[in-house]
Amino acid sequence: MSAAQIEFFWDSASPYTYLAATQIEQLAARHGATVRWRPFLLGKAFEATGNRAPASIPVKGKYLFGDLQLWARHYGVPLRFPSVFPVASLGSLRVACALPEADVARWAQAVMHAYWAENQDIGQPQVLAQVATDLGLDSDALLAKTQTPAVKEALKANTDEAIRRGVFGAPTFFVGEQMFWGNDRLELLDAYLGGRLG
Amino acid sequence: MSAAQIEFFWDSASPYTYLAATQIEQLAARHGATVRWRPFLLGKAFEATGNRAPASIPVKGKYLFGDLQLWARHYGVPLRFPSVFPVASLGSLRVACALPEADVARWAQAVMHAYWAENQDIGQPQVLAQVATDLGLDSDALLAKTQTPAVKEALKANTDEAIRRGVFGAPTFFVGEQMFWGNDRLELLDAYLGGRLG
Repeated sequence: MSAAQIEFFWDSASPYTYLAATQIEQLAARHGATVRWRPFLLGKAFEATGNRAPASIPVKGKYLFGDLQLWARHYGVPLRFPSVFPVASLGSLRVACALPEADVARWAQAVMHAYWAENQDIGQPQVLAQVATDLGLDSDALLAKTQTPAVKEALKANTDEAIRRGVFGAPTFFVGEQMFWGNDRLELLDAYLGGRLG
Repeated sequence: MSAAQIEFFWDSASPYTYLAATQIEQLAARHGATVRWRPFLLGKAFEATGNRAPASIPVKGKYLFGDLQLWARHYGVPLRFPSVFPVASLGSLRVACALPEADVARWAQAVMHAYWAENQDIGQPQVLAQVATDLGLDSDALLAKTQTPAVKEALKANTDEAIRRGVFGAPTFFVGEQMFWGNDRLELLDAYLGGRLG
């Protein structure tokens, strides 16, 4: 299974996606695999499938709030529940679609860190501009590009493809057509790439 | 954290509970912990909390069907999706309440194995009787005891307590009041007992 590719469907609005995003590159590296970071709109997948955010059940939401902190400690990564939640992640996902493929991973990681660790409202264009600038990117050009039809269409195409392939939540990973849903499936993804689930 | 006790709320109708049940004693043993197997009625927790079975979203149900098989391979345990599903687990849970504490773990493991590995309809009293006999238990006395008010009340009390403590799904584990929901939280439970999440 060397040289496998992991497709990673991510939406920066999802806390478990943030957690998985802190782990996936190391996991891939252990197997000599690569990660293709694919932004998509989770809300559209909820709409299309009838799924809903887990926190829509109050007692479940309360549990998951603590669960996120346990995972963050388990991974040794910061997580501070944002004051603006849910957040408008559309802009951050369009930026990902406006970037060259080689820059998408670090953009995704930086923008999710800004939101999930630093409590910055990534629904605000000036926040996105700052994250881009900090990465050494041309923020003006980048944000202008997010308004082009090609970029809007690219995000829509990713979302449609995700739904067509069975995505109903985030994070979702594919190795070929084998799907793994959830931060809590990294354990299975790891075993799968290691050839232990064949 | 040595001598910790894990409370394990289980309902034999739940496939992820079966999977977790194949792992929990080894996990506990690694930490010198004990497991208290506590039968409860998952359906009542769904009713009380507004939660619902994950397979109620069709595309999610389809994914989880395959996911169960991946976990079974990961653990190296058999899993054959039963032809009768959902199953009436009430009788199997009442038997657990009728048994001395020391016999509950092996009963739970045997009855879940019968249903989830051997496709036996554990909603049928004669199936429960056979599982009991195979364990060397007095099946006639045991099944008679399941009809007593004390046993019925014990299961109801477990269920009420689970709901009061925040249980909305299965399997659910507690160490003290720290709750872990799901087979996929055994990784966190393991880290917690190892003192790595403090």
